[in-house]
Amino acid sequence: MPKTMKAAVSKEYGKPLVIEEVPVPKPGKNEILVKIEACGVCHTDLHACDGDWPVKPKANLIPGHEGVGRIVELGEGVTHLKVGDVVGIPWLYSACGHCEHCFGGWETLCESQENGGYSVNGGFAEYAVGAADYVGILDKNLSHQDLVNIAPILCAGVTVYKGLKMTEARPGEWVTISGIGGLGHVAVQYAKAMGLRIAAVDVADDKLELAKKYGAEVVANAKTENVVEKIRNATDGGTHGVLVTAVSPKAFEQAVALTRRGGTVAMNGLPPGEFPISIFNMILNGITVRGSIVGTRLDLQEAINFAQTGRVKAHVTATKLENVNEVFDKMRKGQIDGRMVLDMAQ
Amino acid sequence: MPKTMKAAVSKEYGKPLVIEEVPVPKPGKNEILVKIEACGVCHTDLHACDGDWPVKPKANLIPGHEGVGRIVELGEGVTHLKVGDVVGIPWLYSACGHCEHCFGGWETLCESQENGGYSVNGGFAEYAVGAADYVGILDKNLSHQDLVNIAPILCAGVTVYKGLKMTEARPGEWVTISGIGGLGHVAVQYAKAMGLRIAAVDVADDKLELAKKYGAEVVANAKTENVVEKIRNATDGGTHGVLVTAVSPKAFEQAVALTRRGGTVAMNGLPPGEFPISIFNMILNGITVRGSIVGTRLDLQEAINFAQTGRVKAHVTATKLENVNEVFDKMRKGQIDGRMVLDMAQ
Amino acid sequence: MPKTMKAAVSKEYGKPLVIEEVPVPKPGKNEILVKIEACGVCHTDLHACDGDWPVKPKANLIPGHEGVGRIVELGEGVTHLKVGDVVGIPWLYSACGHCEHCFGGWETLCESQENGGYSVNGGFAEYAVGAADYVGILDKNLSHQDLVNIAPILCAGVTVYKGLKMTEARPGEWVTISGIGGLGHVAVQYAKAMGLRIAAVDVADDKLELAKKYGAEVVANAKTENVVEKIRNATDGGTHGVLVTAVSPKAFEQAVALTRRGGTVAMNGLPPGEFPISIFNMILNGITVRGSIVGTRLDLQEAINFAQTGRVKAHVTATKLENVNEVFDKMRKGQIDGRMVLDMAQ
Amino acid sequence: MPKTMKAAVSKEYGKPLVIEEVPVPKPGKNEILVKIEACGVCHTDLHACDGDWPVKPKANLIPGHEGVGRIVELGEGVTHLKVGDVVGIPWLYSACGHCEHCFGGWETLCESQENGGYSVNGGFAEYAVGAADYVGILDKNLSHQDLVNIAPILCAGVTVYKGLKMTEARPGEWVTISGIGGLGHVAVQYAKAMGLRIAAVDVADDKLELAKKYGAEVVANAKTENVVEKIRNATDGGTHGVLVTAVSPKAFEQAVALTRRGGTVAMNGLPPGEFPISIFNMILNGITVRGSIVGTRLDLQEAINFAQTGRVKAHVTATKLENVNEVFDKMRKGQIDGRMVLDMAQ
Repeated sequence: MPKTMKAAVSKEYGKPLVIEEVPVPKPGKNEILVKIEACGVCHTDLHACDGDWPVKPKANLIPGHEGVGRIVELGEGVTHLKVGDVVGIPWLYSACGHCEHCFGGWETLCESQENGGYSVNGGFAEYAVGAADYVGILDKNLSHQDLVNIAPILCAGVTVYKGLKMTEARPGEWVTISGIGGLGHVAVQYAKAMGLRIAAVDVADDKLELAKKYGAEVVANAKTENVVEKIRNATDGGTHGVLVTAVSPKAFEQAVALTRRGGTVAMNGLPPGEFPISIFNMILNGITVRGSIVGTRLDLQEAINFAQTGRVKAHVTATKLENVNEVFDKMRKGQIDGRMVLDMAQ
Repeated sequence: MPKTMKAAVSKEYGKPLVIEEVPVPKPGKNEILVKIEACGVCHTDLHACDGDWPVKPKANLIPGHEGVGRIVELGEGVTHLKVGDVVGIPWLYSACGHCEHCFGGWETLCESQENGGYSVNGGFAEYAVGAADYVGILDKNLSHQDLVNIAPILCAGVTVYKGLKMTEARPGEWVTISGIGGLGHVAVQYAKAMGLRIAAVDVADDKLELAKKYGAEVVANAKTENVVEKIRNATDGGTHGVLVTAVSPKAFEQAVALTRRGGTVAMNGLPPGEFPISIFNMILNGITVRGSIVGTRLDLQEAINFAQTGRVKAHVTATKLENVNEVFDKMRKGQIDGRMVLDMAQ
Repeated sequence: MPKTMKAAVSKEYGKPLVIEEVPVPKPGKNEILVKIEACGVCHTDLHACDGDWPVKPKANLIPGHEGVGRIVELGEGVTHLKVGDVVGIPWLYSACGHCEHCFGGWETLCESQENGGYSVNGGFAEYAVGAADYVGILDKNLSHQDLVNIAPILCAGVTVYKGLKMTEARPGEWVTISGIGGLGHVAVQYAKAMGLRIAAVDVADDKLELAKKYGAEVVANAKTENVVEKIRNATDGGTHGVLVTAVSPKAFEQAVALTRRGGTVAMNGLPPGEFPISIFNMILNGITVRGSIVGTRLDLQEAINFAQTGRVKAHVTATKLENVNEVFDKMRKGQIDGRMVLDMAQ
Repeated sequence: MPKTMKAAVSKEYGKPLVIEEVPVPKPGKNEILVKIEACGVCHTDLHACDGDWPVKPKANLIPGHEGVGRIVELGEGVTHLKVGDVVGIPWLYSACGHCEHCFGGWETLCESQENGGYSVNGGFAEYAVGAADYVGILDKNLSHQDLVNIAPILCAGVTVYKGLKMTEARPGEWVTISGIGGLGHVAVQYAKAMGLRIAAVDVADDKLELAKKYGAEVVANAKTENVVEKIRNATDGGTHGVLVTAVSPKAFEQAVALTRRGGTVAMNGLPPGEFPISIFNMILNGITVRGSIVGTRLDLQEAINFAQTGRVKAHVTATKLENVNEVFDKMRKGQIDGRMVLDMAQ
């Protein structure tokens, strides 16, 4: 095992990440050390480095919560994993294990959770530590390229998969995916694999074409069409579920208007500020609106299984760790197609 | 059967109701004629007479959707009810019976529903027609006074009962009832009967005392106390469910802040306008917000059963039909304690 | 409209059906008259004609509860259907509409239900009457051949679709289909369309090949293999749901043994007699066993939609009405592949 | 801390327990040492000492899985508990923490679970070790006598509470409790606190009287009355849920016959052997039958909260540890009323 490793470190809020040699971390009790092969880049990484959320990340943070790779060392007490196992280290790095949320299979709501690449170091590095009971388990036979492709499932994938579950739409029912970007283009595939019928909304026609390719039966351009009318007509009264991955107030307002009577809007996108809702309409139409954040370990494992059986595949552009600041720049400008992944083998 | 009957008729929006003799209606196919013994007065009756909702009521409306009484005549095709049976005619006067909502046990979402005392005549009269498959069935042995007392269950009761169900709070869990008025004071009793632990919020101390009497363990005065802090502390993290019967934006904002992680806010109150929600907080805390309107026939029957077994009793002040305009005046001024009921025997 | 029609009539239990001219029925209140284009033949039709169930069918019965065709006449009070609409008349001919089961969207449990081709005449005829609020609605543009193909959805389809729902298996989870006959070969397709992963069990290798073709990932021959071991291994602990369409005690015992901890067995097959269950095992493994019969109107409409969008298609062999007794003979001998349908145009 | 402690040890299957001095155990990583104040005696303890279950208990076992007391020492890594905290050590001593059942809030189905007083030593001793993340948390202010009274909640309480939840009966609906013994008399109280209406079945009139006292509205003596007919009539069609704590085949058969259409039987009792079920009846009536074992940590905490707020109280007879063999004798003879508790202060 080397003593040091290459990592992208956030030294100061809003400044570029610094690529530097730092000590390889040691796995503690119930932890494992993972040699990272790839790590997706998420919008949250940008927030972490900008320090613009109310709760601040750790100092000298190594971001990244979509890191996947092989276990190279087991910490004390780890018995169900072995060196060589392939795992992913997610946003939900760990939770307390004994609060009501942890007991109830809702550890994503644990108030004492640690978050990968935020409150603890993450996957923008050659090695990273994971919590043995919280990592996602991947198939040992995945190739390096498979790992590059599957990395985004660790956050983007599980987030939309859980969001779709939270709409409570059942196979055969309709769901609208609002926003066909990094999250949305994966959401369409999960929805398809879950037996849902899909309407897709975006402001770019090429994104809508992509949605169609993945199985959307109805698409609507929020810039050029009356989205609500088009989708309500095509689905005979609105879709049973709506998943909002877009972050605009307009998207949110449309989402509620798109929802079939008795249906549910799940919100994945994290726009700043507040949005107005019409209580009168929600009551009259029996509408439910809910927030959904990443997914539990069970959701993660299920999301991974969909990807491993080939039913879901993120559109990935790989680049080397050293290019992370350029990736951030593109992200700020909204120029990323699908998902960017840092490929540690490049 | 007499040819005419006394009724309170809305002749012109915003004008007092006129007490006059009108023909006794004839029950059509699958309908029944009911001799009304009592009918509660609901805020919606005021909206109907003021014509201030987007969808307007019928002309020359007889309001009232909490009318209870005995069947005196059966329309064609009615076989499961008998003359002498005691029933209540609810807001959900009838529904189409063949849309997806009707099929699914959600006839309250039927787009072709008729509403008692709104799109069809209601219970502010000596007789009223009901739809045989939609009336609430009451115990034949109830006395006249029992019927006066139970009338508000037909709308206020079923509305809060359904609202509590929609919070998905389970026995042993906490629920906040926000607003201890005509709806809220009944909601506290339903919550108690459903095995829930109760926090109550109002702006009047006497209402909070009432809530305590009915079983609330925690009460908070929204005028003089930090409601969110007090209830979150007393319940170790907020209540699992929140039922909002109050109609202020403030109450709604507090409701979301009061909700335990993973919990649900159900909204019964129909305030005009829109209210801002923080999507960020809803996502981080896994909060669900939903609208709930009256209840289905099954909900109604369950709500009635709670009342008939003595576990729920509305605080009722009875008066005669001729006083209906005074009741409306009091309602406009917020001077009603519990629920006013028009007693046809007075 | 002709005065008489050709029909297959059950004159005496256990005797062949008689093809004869009988009066075309008149649709009553809330009924419709349907010109039948095709009607599937179900095992239950055989029970009806043999009279071997505790509750006996009507005298001079015209069997058939998978009849599909075009409306040619509306009874009194029918407004939401039109002459020319295409419908199917299911086993659940009608229900009372006002019991707790009808209220709750569980009209299949109504104690006053009428059953098509059993307590009322069915679809083995040129015309049949349906209850306007209970028929399945089909796409007007379906061709005659489409109707021949879709007929079995009216019973076989909805029965297994509902059964699969009752296993509570979610998309991505495993389900075992036990018995790949008339019901099972449709069940595999529904399971696939619902996003489930599929294990199939039968005693015939060609049936298992068919299951594979429809998407089963694991198949096991109950005659030649250790079904329980094979499926438990292949699915890492058993399948989350098990749907039993087979009618043998052995199949039932295997079903429980196949079920993953916490999983559910839904039973569609109606074997005579009783079967032993081990309470100890059910408690230790948290197993649920439940009966499921046909499906509600909502289930039926959903089942039809899966078929109309091309995701499910029964394997159909069509023959003319006059051959119904030969169809029964084949059925008794277990010689039917998929489903036989009486084609009224032949 | 003393070096040794008094304990009841099972030296040989079927032989009396030996009261002897053994070393006080040391809490390991994530464990705590508890000074036991009281420990209930469960039928399972008898099975453990008789070694008559397929999976055998550890050698030289100290039985007991209802032990409650104060923490006197923390093992390594325990931070959320403190010396002096009051806890109970349940049957589910610990689970693996990373299988799908543990992830899903169903750790009672974990295949790698340890069981208190079975695979590890339990509470028939002055001290016992518990797993920090698996003990039930009790109120610090409970007196010694409170602890004696609450001990049975750790197994009997949580078992029936979970069983009632598994019937899916909702507040206001009916549940039958079959068997009003050590489990059943607690079940009636939980059912009452959960807002359920209760029918009770037993073979002893005094047990039925007790059930009435606790809130049962209907009682039936299985020796002298037609239980099925009586309860079906009194509840207008059977009870929505049935909880079987009795261990006879007859009780099980009655349970299914008692169940309302669409209802659920949950089985808590562990009778040896198999019982016949009629699939035909289960399908026609839409009946669900399921096994339920103890409860998860969340169930346990909820069960404790019901007891701590005074809504549930086991009928307890306390005796000293040295009398444990006499308690076993009484248990074998069916002579125990409510629950026997070993009181370590006697």
